[in-house]
Amino acid sequence: LRQGFPEVIYGQSKTVAQMQAIMTALINKGSNVLATRVYGAKARKLKELFPEAQYHPEARALSIEKNPIVNRGRGKILVVCAGTSDIPVAAEAVLTARLMGNEVEQLFDVGVAGLHRLLSRRHLLSEASVVIVVAGMEGALPSVVGGLVDKPVIAVPTSIGYGAAFNGVAALLGMLNSCAAGVTVVNIDNGFGAAYAASLINRDRA
Amino acid sequence: LRQGFPEVIYGQSKTVAQMQAIMTALINKGSNVLATRVYGAKARKLKELFPEAQYHPEARALSIEKNPIVNRGRGKILVVCAGTSDIPVAAEAVLTARLMGNEVEQLFDVGVAGLHRLLSRRHLLSEASVVIVVAGMEGALPSVVGGLVDKPVIAVPTSIGYGAAFNGVAALLGMLNSCAAGVTVVNIDNGFGAAYAASLINRDRA
Amino acid sequence: LRQGFPEVIYGQSKTVAQMQAIMTALINKGSNVLATRVYGAKARKLKELFPEAQYHPEARALSIEKNPIVNRGRGKILVVCAGTSDIPVAAEAVLTARLMGNEVEQLFDVGVAGLHRLLSRRHLLSEASVVIVVAGMEGALPSVVGGLVDKPVIAVPTSIGYGAAFNGVAALLGMLNSCAAGVTVVNIDNGFGAAYAASLINRDRA
Amino acid sequence: LRQGFPEVIYGQSKTVAQMQAIMTALINKGSNVLATRVYGAKARKLKELFPEAQYHPEARALSIEKNPIVNRGRGKILVVCAGTSDIPVAAEAVLTARLMGNEVEQLFDVGVAGLHRLLSRRHLLSEASVVIVVAGMEGALPSVVGGLVDKPVIAVPTSIGYGAAFNGVAALLGMLNSCAAGVTVVNIDNGFGAAYAASLINRDRA
Amino acid sequence: LRQGFPEVIYGQSKTVAQMQAIMTALINKGSNVLATRVYGAKARKLKELFPEAQYHPEARALSIEKNPIVNRGRGKILVVCAGTSDIPVAAEAVLTARLMGNEVEQLFDVGVAGLHRLLSRRHLLSEASVVIVVAGMEGALPSVVGGLVDKPVIAVPTSIGYGAAFNGVAALLGMLNSCAAGVTVVNIDNGFGAAYAASLINRDRA
Amino acid sequence: LRQGFPEVIYGQSKTVAQMQAIMTALINKGSNVLATRVYGAKARKLKELFPEAQYHPEARALSIEKNPIVNRGRGKILVVCAGTSDIPVAAEAVLTARLMGNEVEQLFDVGVAGLHRLLSRRHLLSEASVVIVVAGMEGALPSVVGGLVDKPVIAVPTSIGYGAAFNGVAALLGMLNSCAAGVTVVNIDNGFGAAYAASLINRDRA
Amino acid sequence: LRQGFPEVIYGQSKTVAQMQAIMTALINKGSNVLATRVYGAKARKLKELFPEAQYHPEARALSIEKNPIVNRGRGKILVVCAGTSDIPVAAEAVLTARLMGNEVEQLFDVGVAGLHRLLSRRHLLSEASVVIVVAGMEGALPSVVGGLVDKPVIAVPTSIGYGAAFNGVAALLGMLNSCAAGVTVVNIDNGFGAAYAASLINRDRA
Amino acid sequence: LRQGFPEVIYGQSKTVAQMQAIMTALINKGSNVLATRVYGAKARKLKELFPEAQYHPEARALSIEKNPIVNRGRGKILVVCAGTSDIPVAAEAVLTARLMGNEVEQLFDVGVAGLHRLLSRRHLLSEASVVIVVAGMEGALPSVVGGLVDKPVIAVPTSIGYGAAFNGVAALLGMLNSCAAGVTVVNIDNGFGAAYAASLINRDRA
Ligand SMILES: Nc1ncnc2c1ncn2[C@@H]1O[C@H](COP(=O)(O)O)[C@@H](O)[C@H]1O
Ligand SMILES: Nc1ncnc2c1ncn2[C@@H]1O[C@H](COP(=O)(O)O)[C@@H](O)[C@H]1O
Ligand SMILES: Nc1ncnc2c1ncn2[C@@H]1O[C@H](COP(=O)(O)O)[C@@H](O)[C@H]1O
Ligand SMILES: Nc1ncnc2c1ncn2[C@@H]1O[C@H](COP(=O)(O)O)[C@@H](O)[C@H]1O
Ligand SMILES: [Mg+2]
Ligand SMILES: [Mg+2]
Ligand SMILES: [Mg+2]
Ligand SMILES: [Mg+2]
Ligand SMILES: [Mg+2]
Ligand SMILES: [Mg+2]
Ligand SMILES: [Mg+2]
Ligand SMILES: [Mg+2]
Repeated sequence: LRQGFPEVIYGQSKTVAQMQAIMTALINKGSNVLATRVYGAKARKLKELFPEAQYHPEARALSIEKNPIVNRGRGKILVVCAGTSDIPVAAEAVLTARLMGNEVEQLFDVGVAGLHRLLSRRHLLSEASVVIVVAGMEGALPSVVGGLVDKPVIAVPTSIGYGAAFNGVAALLGMLNSCAAGVTVVNIDNGFGAAYAASLINRDRA
Repeated sequence: LRQGFPEVIYGQSKTVAQMQAIMTALINKGSNVLATRVYGAKARKLKELFPEAQYHPEARALSIEKNPIVNRGRGKILVVCAGTSDIPVAAEAVLTARLMGNEVEQLFDVGVAGLHRLLSRRHLLSEASVVIVVAGMEGALPSVVGGLVDKPVIAVPTSIGYGAAFNGVAALLGMLNSCAAGVTVVNIDNGFGAAYAASLINRDRA
Repeated sequence: LRQGFPEVIYGQSKTVAQMQAIMTALINKGSNVLATRVYGAKARKLKELFPEAQYHPEARALSIEKNPIVNRGRGKILVVCAGTSDIPVAAEAVLTARLMGNEVEQLFDVGVAGLHRLLSRRHLLSEASVVIVVAGMEGALPSVVGGLVDKPVIAVPTSIGYGAAFNGVAALLGMLNSCAAGVTVVNIDNGFGAAYAASLINRDRA
Repeated sequence: LRQGFPEVIYGQSKTVAQMQAIMTALINKGSNVLATRVYGAKARKLKELFPEAQYHPEARALSIEKNPIVNRGRGKILVVCAGTSDIPVAAEAVLTARLMGNEVEQLFDVGVAGLHRLLSRRHLLSEASVVIVVAGMEGALPSVVGGLVDKPVIAVPTSIGYGAAFNGVAALLGMLNSCAAGVTVVNIDNGFGAAYAASLINRDRA
Repeated sequence: LRQGFPEVIYGQSKTVAQMQAIMTALINKGSNVLATRVYGAKARKLKELFPEAQYHPEARALSIEKNPIVNRGRGKILVVCAGTSDIPVAAEAVLTARLMGNEVEQLFDVGVAGLHRLLSRRHLLSEASVVIVVAGMEGALPSVVGGLVDKPVIAVPTSIGYGAAFNGVAALLGMLNSCAAGVTVVNIDNGFGAAYAASLINRDRA
Repeated sequence: LRQGFPEVIYGQSKTVAQMQAIMTALINKGSNVLATRVYGAKARKLKELFPEAQYHPEARALSIEKNPIVNRGRGKILVVCAGTSDIPVAAEAVLTARLMGNEVEQLFDVGVAGLHRLLSRRHLLSEASVVIVVAGMEGALPSVVGGLVDKPVIAVPTSIGYGAAFNGVAALLGMLNSCAAGVTVVNIDNGFGAAYAASLINRDRA
Repeated sequence: LRQGFPEVIYGQSKTVAQMQAIMTALINKGSNVLATRVYGAKARKLKELFPEAQYHPEARALSIEKNPIVNRGRGKILVVCAGTSDIPVAAEAVLTARLMGNEVEQLFDVGVAGLHRLLSRRHLLSEASVVIVVAGMEGALPSVVGGLVDKPVIAVPTSIGYGAAFNGVAALLGMLNSCAAGVTVVNIDNGFGAAYAASLINRDRA
Repeated sequence: LRQGFPEVIYGQSKTVAQMQAIMTALINKGSNVLATRVYGAKARKLKELFPEAQYHPEARALSIEKNPIVNRGRGKILVVCAGTSDIPVAAEAVLTARLMGNEVEQLFDVGVAGLHRLLSRRHLLSEASVVIVVAGMEGALPSVVGGLVDKPVIAVPTSIGYGAAFNGVAALLGMLNSCAAGVTVVNIDNGFGAAYAASLINRDRA
């Protein structure tokens, strides 16, 4: 079904042994592999076990790219993020989108409190075919971006913030209530899911 | 920006007088018009004021289609819904998508407790380029549909249900946590928003 | 204490008889009077009982201005609002601020999905000494305004929206988590409270 | 009352010393013993103290089976689970049901996003007299299973997931709102409770 | 599948015309019919349209029993309820269970604040094969009943109460956390669902 | 004001140094001292620093009783608790009540799922002038106790439980909605507060 | 058990016919009767049916006092309330306490934003043996009162307020977290329950 | 824009290396620097790396003051706090306000349960031009202070408390519902934000 796509492992609650078993099986099948939510000791040990793997510290992810990645997209996916603390989630989206065969552009640290940074890079928005917008705290960025473009916008709330941010709930609610039409939302911190959906949207089926 | 698209009015909290003023202005501009969340006395009065308008009772919406609707999509948008009570939201999505220049198919009353109804119509899923899935109560349908297709799925939770359905919150949370990748979510009962996003996805920009 | 300020009555849960008694007492004391949350039959009856009263339909409020209103402020209070549905709350703020002796400016219908409308009126922001920002749904506007000005911003969430707007909770959380420093928040729909605080800030105590 | 059933100890918040005292007392009474939520150092120490005990790592439980377990059921209890992360809860249910004198079957890793895995094993559903369904994230599986069988279904939400899964709340709400009749629900992660209820249902009282 | 069971219509959100159409179709199919959540004008009109129907005011339900109801159960279903305000939900359970071919007993108004009323009728508990316990407010009754019997207990929280009862949430949480093993829970006010599950449990499949 | 009462220190978030300073000051003033929420290393170190102190492990509290405790109550305070995990909170209540000059009785491990344990000790209830009832999970015990006595009942929810217990919220809501009149409630785990209020109630002011 | 106390009927969800039946039965038994939450048409009709009844509009309650009320208390119960909108709940408490045989004092409209009103009436606090404090919105008054007296304080949150008052939840949480020891809490708007508990506390059992 | 203000770094989720890089850049730009939420090992290491930095343990913050701080305010900012556990947040506010060029006064440990401590220092309130009020638990202090002064009050809820304090939510809701006009609110524990807003209010723009 997912021909050519990498097989993806959600690493959060798995032991090194479990990861090793799954990854070995996938490699033997000949798939490319992406393991998300991998960091600290677990990352180090898996890197040792799989020297051919590449670790992406910003994205907290590990990839094994046995097969060349073919561009299967119609256009570019742009990943926008609000603050530096949102970067791990945004980087997970960038990496996933690239491994799924898309041309990916990124525009980081353009939160709504400093609008000029976003406005001065507007051409990036107009060149994209799908935009992923990652933001925590009040989650206002997707509304602003959605107002500037006429493209599908996938909003990713992050768990960044404290107090009444409620681990991403404030951002999630903000995005679900976006006054800009064309915005759809994925789960808190789900950079992978946003990129997966963006890839399906960007897929060239001709 | 939204060239050729209808202008859309959210009718819920507007008076007949306010609606009349806005609609007249839009008609004078030469736009097609879609007014959502219009029903009961308000619908009747607007229909009298605008005899050229068409009322869509299932969708609780009113449209004025002065300009012919041109198909601007690459494929079909399929709108799937779980129960009969979810139909108003699904019908709002169908109408919006059609007015925005898409070929639209519908597959209603295929809730997960009667899976055979969905499975026996699977070809409709494979023919679509985007699928909108509307469901209340436990909101399980988008996960099932997402597992069957390799297309973007937009999930719309509805406020249908009682008790621990919490006016759509149970369905919303279910959809945000969908175990099927490729599912993105809009606000509770937001059939319009889902169709708007689906249109942007389906748009033929070639 | 509140010398020269109007006496303010919260009209929501009071009967016409209760309102009449309180208003009569205040008039006899020689105060200016502001009654908020007054509409429909209650408004009509009070207007009949107090012909000297002025009814402000947009603000859903009634005022009796026996004493001339003296400007007691250092600068202007600007009231900004996002959507047309937010106007009742914004208008309550405008009226309260004016009756409390401030010069007031208003900038309505400048939601973040249409940023150009706000940016093209930026001079209004720079001329104000305090800015009140009223918004429902995702409540993103105060962050954008807060990023543009170096003035105190008072954010007022409104109960406008549906579904996951949760009657203003989404907007409230968004505003409490604003990434723009200098933003403080009042209760949902509390246009009066925002204007009261803005008046204290703007007060010329020299 | 619970003649022949094992005595069950909830191990989560008990010290090794407390566990040892309770287990010794129960053994002296001649009961079979089941200790749930026992893992890590606590499990190791108890295994040393009670060499006759059997540790069940998947179920995170310890059993001492002095008395032979007699089948007291009318039919089979089937334990179904959605994802690999749900296995600890499902295994707790399997173990509890077996120790309570039931024939138990298990069907793991059949989440709704890969429906064919469930459908290809449908005979297991039809052979059971009670079905326990364990699922986290959106908790959609009990609705699908409930639609396929005409047997009592006990749904167990798990705390698996992140973000808007809210530690099992999304799954819990989904299950409480199941559109399939015949589904009842127990607390989040309560595999023991589901198996206990299933045993009472399956009990042969003839 | 549901051979001999009545067809059940959830009447809450349906119009008289919709109800009439569905009921006519079911009658033509030769089914018994149960329509729940039917009251006021809707009940009166349906009674006029279907003179053979029986209205059950306590249960707010309408039944048409064309086929004789055959006892298909192994034992009795007992429906227990806490307060008089819980009776509509309890009566819906009693009626549903009876129509599904069960012998049904009822024990109403035995809330935990007057324990003697329950204790003096204990023999009813011991004679049942399944117990449905309906309670609002703090929802404590299922724990007490569950401690007294060694049978499956299905707990139904009701929306009765005010303030921190949160329309049944307090009772629902209480029941999910019951310290008595063997208790499973259905949605708030779902007397129908509890009876449906109890019928499946009580079914004589020999 | 609180003549003869011990001075009470809430130890949870204080360092040993902070505790030492406060305790020394209070001792020098001649007060009896009670420090709650003290355990582990902090408890050991304070015991070394104040050899005259008595540590109460069950109550996780430390007392220094320089002055003899005089009985200042009209009757007995009875502390009832549901499960063994609730004992720390119950013991905090017992200790506080005793140090405040009350005769205290305790009745532990009498949860509602094993009603006979409570009913067989009913005389203790009738001998008390105030009853403190401590319970976690579904928090049903205060309703049962309140139904048996005609005395003030102070309910203390505990954070014991998991899943939908929500760290004491389920028990708290249950208690606030108690169907037994005469029950008042304190914060989750607040054994101290319950005992303080019980002491004021039991105080002999003659 | 409740010798001499009135029988109390919670009128909220009962029909006139139900009320009439219950009241007639109680009168025949010779009890005094208190019916709470009775207003509008229901109150008028019951007054007609029971001419000997007294209606208390402020308390929204109806009483029938066949037997003289004997003072059974040790001291006075003082009912304090914050705002005029809280008066219905406070008046329910005053009436209940009086009918249960207590001397009752009241101190209304002394919210914390106008502290002088409370402080100037401090002698009332010192003369009471129990204090009931009724407040909505932020529910701060019980903490202030609790700091001024050395008596049991029963806090009653009311549903007064809007927006983030969440129908009394804000006040309830405030009261449960009161920094003044000796404060216990009842359900939102439960003036009856507070008075019932206060009566038990004030009861002279000598 | 923020001429002369320190650059502020939110230290919570940043590594020492990230902090070092940002601080070095800011120092090179010639700015004063304030790093908040810095404590433990991170604080020690940064102090070593930047010997010219000053560590403020109470405020858990680090400052580098290369440029003299000029008083740019019209009056004094007063920071009031309720309990000793609230001091870190209050101290963060004091430090921020001072670094932003304000004269700052502090009044700590004046919780509402001991009102005399606040009332005896009332002159401090009347001398301030803005008051910041920091409180956890029930968050009642801003209402009391707001009732005593005719100045802008900025309320800061803290996460201090347990159980139903819900990490600051109880205090936050209390403050949003303050019955004293003129109170605005910032996020839980946001001492920095309160001081920033207070500085903008106090700024002398003449
Ligand atoms: N049913 C709907 N749900 C959500 N948004 C809608 C709906 N209908 C229209 N809208 C949006 O509301 C905008 C118009 O809002 P208004 O100016 O208040 O009429 C449209 O441009 C749409 O983006
Ligand atoms: N995993 C579990 N989840 C919920 N309840 C359990 C679990 N294991 C045991 N129990 C229940 O806890 C009781 C024992 O509790 P305790 O006396 O605290 O060990 C048993 O009789 C069971 O009813
Ligand atoms: N009172 C009720 N509560 C919950 N579910 C019900 C109720 N009554 C009927 N149902 C379910 O709703 C289904 C019919 O739904 P509908 O097709 O919308 O009438 C029935 O098959 C039952 O499973
Ligand atoms: N376990 C406890 N739970 C709640 N409040 C407590 C507890 N122990 C002491 N207190 C209260 O905390 C006050 C002391 O607080 P502190 O000054 O922070 O030590 C005492 O006077 C009591 O009112
Ligand atoms: Mg757009
Ligand atoms: Mg898919
Ligand atoms: Mg700013
Ligand atoms: Mg079924
Ligand atoms: Mg039992
Ligand atoms: Mg009682
Ligand atoms: Mg006190
Ligand atoms: Mg003030």
